[in-house]
This record gives sequence, C-alpha cells and structure tokens, in this order.
Amino acid sequence: MTLFGAHEPEREPNPEVFGVDAQASPGWLSQEGLAETRGRVPILYVEAVPVRVDHLGQVEKVGLLLRGSMDGRMSRSFVSGRVLLGETVRRALLRNLEKDLGPAAFPRIPASPVPFTVAEYLPLPGVTPLHDPRQHAVSLVYVVSVTGDCQPRQDALELTWLTPAEASAPEVLADMEGGRGVLLTQALAHLNALG
Amino acid sequence: MTLFGAHEPEREPNPEVFGVDAQASPGWLSQEGLAETRGRVPILYVEAVPVRVDHLGQVEKVGLLLRGSMDGRMSRSFVSGRVLLGETVRRALLRNLEKDLGPAAFPRIPASPVPFTVAEYLPLPGVTPLHDPRQHAVSLVYVVSVTGDCQPRQDALELTWLTPAEASAPEVLADMEGGRGVLLTQALAHLNALG
Amino acid sequence: MTLFGAHEPEREPNPEVFGVDAQASPGWLSQEGLAETRGRVPILYVEAVPVRVDHLGQVEKVGLLLRGSMDGRMSRSFVSGRVLLGETVRRALLRNLEKDLGPAAFPRIPASPVPFTVAEYLPLPGVTPLHDPRQHAVSLVYVVSVTGDCQPRQDALELTWLTPAEASAPEVLADMEGGRGVLLTQALAHLNALG
Amino acid sequence: MTLFGAHEPEREPNPEVFGVDAQASPGWLSQEGLAETRGRVPILYVEAVPVRVDHLGQVEKVGLLLRGSMDGRMSRSFVSGRVLLGETVRRALLRNLEKDLGPAAFPRIPASPVPFTVAEYLPLPGVTPLHDPRQHAVSLVYVVSVTGDCQPRQDALELTWLTPAEASAPEVLADMEGGRGVLLTQALAHLNALG
Repeated sequence: MTLFGAHEPEREPNPEVFGVDAQASPGWLSQEGLAETRGRVPILYVEAVPVRVDHLGQVEKVGLLLRGSMDGRMSRSFVSGRVLLGETVRRALLRNLEKDLGPAAFPRIPASPVPFTVAEYLPLPGVTPLHDPRQHAVSLVYVVSVTGDCQPRQDALELTWLTPAEASAPEVLADMEGGRGVLLTQALAHLNALG
Repeated sequence: MTLFGAHEPEREPNPEVFGVDAQASPGWLSQEGLAETRGRVPILYVEAVPVRVDHLGQVEKVGLLLRGSMDGRMSRSFVSGRVLLGETVRRALLRNLEKDLGPAAFPRIPASPVPFTVAEYLPLPGVTPLHDPRQHAVSLVYVVSVTGDCQPRQDALELTWLTPAEASAPEVLADMEGGRGVLLTQALAHLNALG
Repeated sequence: MTLFGAHEPEREPNPEVFGVDAQASPGWLSQEGLAETRGRVPILYVEAVPVRVDHLGQVEKVGLLLRGSMDGRMSRSFVSGRVLLGETVRRALLRNLEKDLGPAAFPRIPASPVPFTVAEYLPLPGVTPLHDPRQHAVSLVYVVSVTGDCQPRQDALELTWLTPAEASAPEVLADMEGGRGVLLTQALAHLNALG
Repeated sequence: MTLFGAHEPEREPNPEVFGVDAQASPGWLSQEGLAETRGRVPILYVEAVPVRVDHLGQVEKVGLLLRGSMDGRMSRSFVSGRVLLGETVRRALLRNLEKDLGPAAFPRIPASPVPFTVAEYLPLPGVTPLHDPRQHAVSLVYVVSVTGDCQPRQDALELTWLTPAEASAPEVLADMEGGRGVLLTQALAHLNALG
C-alpha cells in the first residue's frame, strides 16, 4: 500500500460499486497486476475539470474535490481515473465523472476528443511540475460542464465550487494534489477565465 | 442588392426583430455603411455547426440550414452572422444561433473561445475553397450542441438533421454554400465523426 | 492622433516601408478611413508570441517587445497588426512578424490556422481584462517559433528574450500593454511552460 | 509473432539501434512482458504525420511510410511508436521520428503538447474506423514539420511525399494501415489543406 501511494486503494475503481463482474472484466486489475504493469508502461488516465457555465458558455464556477490522504493532509484534485482495457476515452471520462461526482451530475462529455492539455506525471518529484509517487501516468485532461447535482463519492470528502478568481488564488493552486495547480491554471487559461 | 450578393438583405440582421433601436446601436449598419466598410477591411463573422450529441458527447446529427437564393438555386449552410461593434464573440454566437434556429434551440455555447477552424472567404471564386461574392470575410467556426427545438427563421427555409455519414456524402458537401463542404468535413474531422 | 491612441501612427503599417503603392492597395487605409471603420465594425488583428524552442519543441525563451508611449511609460507587447483587406491570415502573420522583428527573424508560421486563443479588446477599460483605447479589436493569437536574428523595427525599441519563469513574474505580466499579461499566461499555459 | 501482428518484431524498437542498454532501461520490454501488458491496459502511442511546409506554414507535402506486411500486402502509415516507461511524450515523438525517418530528418517537435486528435485502436475490426489486431492502443497524433533529409529505417521500405490533393485520393486513404485514412483526412482538415 505504501508502495503505491497513500490513497491507491481508494483510487483504483471498485468493480462492485459499478455492478461490474471483476472476474469477467479484463479491464479491472488486481493490485498485483496493476503494480506489475506500472513497472512496465506509462498508465493512461483521463482527468476532468468540472465547471458550471452560464448561457454564454462562460465559466462561473470550477469544481474541486477535497480528499484526505494517509498522512492527514487534505488536498484538492480533479475527477480522474484510469482508462481501462477495451474502454474508450469517452466512456472512461463518463465513468470517472460518475464515480467522483455521483450519478446525477449530468456531465456534458465534450464533442471533440482533443484534450486541452496532456499531463505527464513522473514518480520522482521535481522533474516536472506534476508528479505521482505511484507511477508514470499520462493523462488526457478535459474541461467538462456539469449541470446536475454533484454528490462526491468514494474517497472524496467534498466538492467545492470556486469562482475562477477564487480558484486562481495562490493558496488554492498550492493545495492541488501532485502539482495540479499548474493544470488548474491551464484550464482557466483555455477558458479565457484568467484574471 | 446585386452588388453585395443575392441574399444580403435577409442576412444582415434586422434590428426590429431583436427589439434593438437601430439608431442607438452603433453595431447596426446601413446598407451604405456596410458596403463602404466591406471595401476597407475584412469583416469578422462567427459560424456555428449545430449538432445533436449523445450522453457520451458523440455527435449523432449535424444540422444544415436550407436557403434559397435569388437565382432559384437552393444551398445548404451553417448558422452565421457578423460580429457587431461592441459585441463579444460569445454574444455574437448566441445571437446568430437564436436568429437562425429560433429562441427555443437552447444552444450550448462552448466554454473555450478557440474555434475549431478559421475560415477565410475571398470575393473571387477559385482562389481558396471558400468564397463570398459580397466581401472578404474571416469567420471563427464553432461546433455548438443544441438541445432544444429548432425553428429556422429569417431566410432559412428548413433545418435538416443528418447523420455524420449522410453529411459526408459528396452531393451534400457539394451543395454547401460558398464552398462550406470543406468546413463541414473539418467539423466532422474535429469531432472524430468521419468515416 | 490623441483620438486613436498614442502610438497609432507608428502602428498602422507604413506602406513605403514595404514597397507598396498605397494608392493601388485597397488594404491600406487613410487615418480618416480607419477612424470611420473603427466606428462601424470590430477590427481583425493577428498577434504572435515569438518563442525560441529546443530540439524537443520545449520553449526556452519568450520574446517581448518594448515600446514607448507618448505619456512616457514603457510597455511590453507581442507582434501584432491588422489583417488587411484581401490579405490572408497567414500573410498578415508573416508581414507583421517581419514588420516587428525584421526580415531575418525567419518565423515558422504555424501549419494549422487555429489560434491558441481569440483575444477581444474593447475600448472601455475594465469591461474585460484586455482593452484597446482606439477600438474594438478581435485578435487571433499564435505562438510562433523564430529561428533567425531579430531586429525590432518601427516603434519597438527592443526585443527581450525571457525564460518562461521570468516571463511569468508578476511585474512582467503587469507591464504588458492593454492587459496582455493574461495573454502571456495563456500562451505559457498552452505550451505547458507554466511553473 | 503471429500472436502480436505481422510486423510486431520490427515495430517494437530495437534497443541496440539506439545504443540503449536494454537490461538497464526499464522502458524496453521483452515480447512476453509486452504481451502480458497488452492483456491488462491500453498502450500509449504517439504518431506523427510528417509534412513539408512553405514559408507561410502551408502544407506542401505529406509524408507516408510504405511498409510490407507478412501476407504480402503493402500498406501506408505514419511515424508511430510506444511511449516508454519514464519517457516524456516529446522524447517519444522525437525518438520515433528518428527511428522511422532517420537521424537527418530534423523534425520540429510542436511547441504545444496538445495532439490534433486522439486515435483509439481496438483489437476487433469494425467497432471503430481504427483497429490494431495486436492490442488496445491510444495514440496522441501530431503533425510534425520536417526540414531535413528523410531516410526510412527499420521496416519501412519507402517514404512517399504526396501533395494534400494526392493524399486525399480515395485509393490512398483506403491503403492506410488500420483505418488511418480517417486520421490522414483529420490531419489535412486540421491544416486547412482539404479540397
């Protein structure tokens, strides 16, 4: 457990929650299989920055998940999760949005498959702004407008909606897990919502 | 009228339709003012390709407007219109979507201001795939998901919803006004909806 | 002159510099024609953020132009200029890069016409982060790698090459003309060069 | 060999060619390790569409690699290869460009990490336009301008430079390996080089 990061057990999706028969679904890996795979190839993720937009498409709020880690620190993050074997990027996005925001969030998956950025996490901190102690991960990051009711699930304690100005505050950016403050600024830049 | 293209009078938005006081709104131009301006600078447009998407964001249908021109030919086009003086690109997009699709179309203006392509129309046919006999126009082109009821207005006779495969048919692409078959293919390419 | 902003005379390209016969080129406007047009439609611009990249495409330096204004203040800006009547966006980009960086800059005009952002300048300060006292301008903004020798021309006093970290400093961002600090952050975000 | 597709042995990069000590480089996998991993997670690839551009950035030629497969058919493809463990996307792009085009191709790796599309290959043909009999692969696809001399290496027999019009011909698109005709059209659409 310590080997793969504090909240790994919570982050690897739990098949039962989604009514999936883990034995029959090759996408779900045992902890051992996942660990071995992480020693071989970069792992593909999707991440979503949830937003509320007005009738002109302008972002009004950005949603950040609050999670506790084993060392007692709290950190903020986005919706994120692995792309499973045989799963399309769109399905992975939808599944992880429902996993983290609940079944009534009604996310609007983007019509284009092009992410606003590609985030690369290396296991060693300091090499790049982003890191993930568990693995080399490459993440396709999207902005996803959600219109429904969000109920954080699994290991997320809370979903906080911040205005773009609040989300740009240095203390919020510094609080983001694994260096994701950079990603949050990139998301706001992409939306013309800086400053 | 013949000078600036067959359906110019219908295409320059009519202030009364939108409850605007034309005298007080510097954005609205007289035919003379518009003609003179077209002799001086490229004119900025926005265009929108209306789409219906499923819960995974995949495009199911593309909406094409059918318009008649003075020479009796029918042609297909997108939602389009000028960006007026003092008007933001987002407002221009929303106004032109409501102008062409009616007030109940409920378009979802994109959260990012980046168009999927920049279309350049020159008055001379054949220089580029796109042309506009009235003017040099530069158009920011967006894909816009619409969820409501579309009622074509002004000079549009009909809105036809086609599947991506139907929209890719050579006869549909050839029918597009001003060479916009190229833009339609670009929109489908951007959405991973070719083939 | 005061009517259209302090450095307007320097910024409207001078036909003679480029060996153009102004009488025969409809793209060049008299000050009166330009002023009248600015009262009628938004004016289309291109802007370029010049960068030096390494062999992996990573940005090493960002080029900022230093200009003096009539009130004695200095401010920093990007390469920018109008798209002239009949001129393509690509030609406008190249012409303005040569105007501001000299003929030996060897810019690599992007292969795709999609800008990394669309910047909207309104004449009133404070409505949006960006403003231009002279006009309502809409600008297609590109990152352009330059490989040659840059010799600032016209009204630019100096071209300064800054690392991404230096360019992100609050005092540099605050110094940018017309609120372009926001655009500079957007450019760095687009290049994964924040932080 | 038949298990992993006809040209798998040639496509998995050969460490010796690049002066890499395979034992010391965790990124290189044995055929067994790769096969096992392909049964567990989607594999991350990069692909590059090589282009020649003119001084305005307009694409003049698109480079297609010709490869023979074991059943005697020839097919066309792009530069492509896995992202190795611990390798950044930029380095993977450069390494695979050098692998397929030789050391003197002088590719210009894009300054932005955002691909023009994300291609998803599933092992079953017909589910999506793209397929790869060996695996579930997710590929970040870039357009890369190359300025030097290209010498196809490894299993590529030839590099053919086609104009955008030639590359759009139905017989060329149909010849592309694994359904990549769709990707080629998407690349041309992204570059405003259709029609």
